[in-house]
Amino acid sequence: MKKTNPSMLDVARFAGVSIATVSNVINRPEKVSEATAEQVRAAIAELGFVRNDAARSLATGTTSSIGMVLADLDNSLFVDMAHGAQRGVDAVGLRLLLGNAACDLTRQDDYLRLFDEARVGGVLLSPMEDSLAGIERMRSHGRPMVLLNYDQDGIDCCTVLVDNEEVGYLAARHLIETGRKRIGFVAGRDYYQPVHARRVGVQRAVREAGGARLEEIDTGGLDFEDGLAVARALGERPPGQRPDGIVAVTDDIANGIAEGLHTAFVAEVPGDISIVGCEDNRSARSGPVALTAVQLEGVRMGQAAAELLLEEMNAPAGEHRHRTVTVRPGLVVRASTAVAPLGV
Amino acid sequence: MKKTNPSMLDVARFAGVSIATVSNVINRPEKVSEATAEQVRAAIAELGFVRNDAARSLATGTTSSIGMVLADLDNSLFVDMAHGAQRGVDAVGLRLLLGNAACDLTRQDDYLRLFDEARVGGVLLSPMEDSLAGIERMRSHGRPMVLLNYDQDGIDCCTVLVDNEEVGYLAARHLIETGRKRIGFVAGRDYYQPVHARRVGVQRAVREAGGARLEEIDTGGLDFEDGLAVARALGERPPGQRPDGIVAVTDDIANGIAEGLHTAFVAEVPGDISIVGCEDNRSARSGPVALTAVQLEGVRMGQAAAELLLEEMNAPAGEHRHRTVTVRPGLVVRASTAVAPLGV
Repeated sequence: MKKTNPSMLDVARFAGVSIATVSNVINRPEKVSEATAEQVRAAIAELGFVRNDAARSLATGTTSSIGMVLADLDNSLFVDMAHGAQRGVDAVGLRLLLGNAACDLTRQDDYLRLFDEARVGGVLLSPMEDSLAGIERMRSHGRPMVLLNYDQDGIDCCTVLVDNEEVGYLAARHLIETGRKRIGFVAGRDYYQPVHARRVGVQRAVREAGGARLEEIDTGGLDFEDGLAVARALGERPPGQRPDGIVAVTDDIANGIAEGLHTAFVAEVPGDISIVGCEDNRSARSGPVALTAVQLEGVRMGQAAAELLLEEMNAPAGEHRHRTVTVRPGLVVRASTAVAPLGV
Repeated sequence: MKKTNPSMLDVARFAGVSIATVSNVINRPEKVSEATAEQVRAAIAELGFVRNDAARSLATGTTSSIGMVLADLDNSLFVDMAHGAQRGVDAVGLRLLLGNAACDLTRQDDYLRLFDEARVGGVLLSPMEDSLAGIERMRSHGRPMVLLNYDQDGIDCCTVLVDNEEVGYLAARHLIETGRKRIGFVAGRDYYQPVHARRVGVQRAVREAGGARLEEIDTGGLDFEDGLAVARALGERPPGQRPDGIVAVTDDIANGIAEGLHTAFVAEVPGDISIVGCEDNRSARSGPVALTAVQLEGVRMGQAAAELLLEEMNAPAGEHRHRTVTVRPGLVVRASTAVAPLGV
């Protein structure tokens, strides 16, 4: 049963306890019952586990790490996910290595391969479209992997999702509750799963409310400039035929609309038209007013993903069952929908 | 001369060429002269270099990586540095592993140790205060390391700095050039080197201008709330005794001042008081108007650091000389100082 360089994870598996417990036995023995401590010490002795950082081989050094591949570090959602994952792995004394795919599928695959070669304990991945090959290679090497924000059939992994239908629902309901009757949903690329799900949520909120009606406006894209174009188009309509509340499927669209309405003196935000974004992305290009937005809860997603991964790393062989955790979004109200004067 | 697992770096050193050249010989031979290619092929043969990702050991796998430890991923300056470093290492086919110290010195040291154990080719570090121990351990293992944004005597490393005196100078000069006469410099913690240097730059700009005068306001801290407090204090003065242009040493202070002036109807920004921030941090808490700011040029800093590191990794033993690259900041003008109506 002796291995050359058993890791803390090996000890945890052998003793049938969590990594956190092994770490406690070593670092904070007062926190562990004597029976459990005894069990862990027996595993340490049996496996020949040496806790000596200098003496540890590279392999054990990196087994005590988790790799995380982020789709785009420029987008604060992924930064939030990294923070949440850090919180999750810090709790058990593991370390989180980040790779930024920066929206490049080849680079994403490079990082997956690197983490695989480096024998990290497991991988967290917020995949880009068409990431199946890299995911399957990783799985075929038996390395635990949890996916974030990737709702695809036939993926044999634990997954953390945000409820995007709820995102759209919360955004539209907020407009209706603040008295708006003519709701506009501005979006593009409905083939993206999050865009489509948000649309469904907006439709549901408007249907439930009864008195409001919905106009769906297709921008073609998802960027600030697409929002500017929508504002220009709205400027050509008589005021009574414009929406009085807009859900924009991205924050960039939302800010583009606000900027366009403001610069061309088309309408006041939020007086004439109030606007909600669907991301609460700190890195979105900003508009003239602070944006009310539905928050995708990246920190909670990252933490949930780390916890699922540790669970899988820690499960006895054959006993792990994949599951999906769905995080509920929340609404953050700011000036773009707050018609009353803002308090400090 | 044979080693078990020579890396591309070993080949480059042996052939006396850059890693980029070795990579070109292997992947894009048409880009390399026949004489150079011959030299590289001889080195490959001599060292027994095998370019087979699956067969590579962990050690070579990670030698082809650069580690980067970031002080705080929540601050967009460090995200920018990561992007710049990625650009620098992508150019030579290396991979960048990121560790987020998240403002915790212990975690910073953990990452330095992990990268050391993993035998990365080199390390980029934006250190926190008092980082000497980790830096010296790393150096003692002979691993190349480049420091970002850390201006300390007695550090035996290549360093990339931003010219913080120029940051303050550009901010104050912009206010003066747009007609402001009573310049306020709002800052705290002058013992931080960047804070002090920005102050010196502001003083120089005001001195050079002649007609303007300078008031230095100490906030105690560097946060949004410190800015709010300054706005409250300004509200208690008669309008003619307030600054008409403010340089805030952080964007958070700047946005806090703008928010405080706006909410309590003390003054219009930029009409009565225009405001400049000193970071252009996308993650700063935002205020009621888009902020003019001096940009710290994180992307350029990251790229310069990666290039210095590759230079050091690539230099024949004993021939490397440390140097410091100082990046010049730039000014981004937005609504908080733009008195004329904004164009699109």
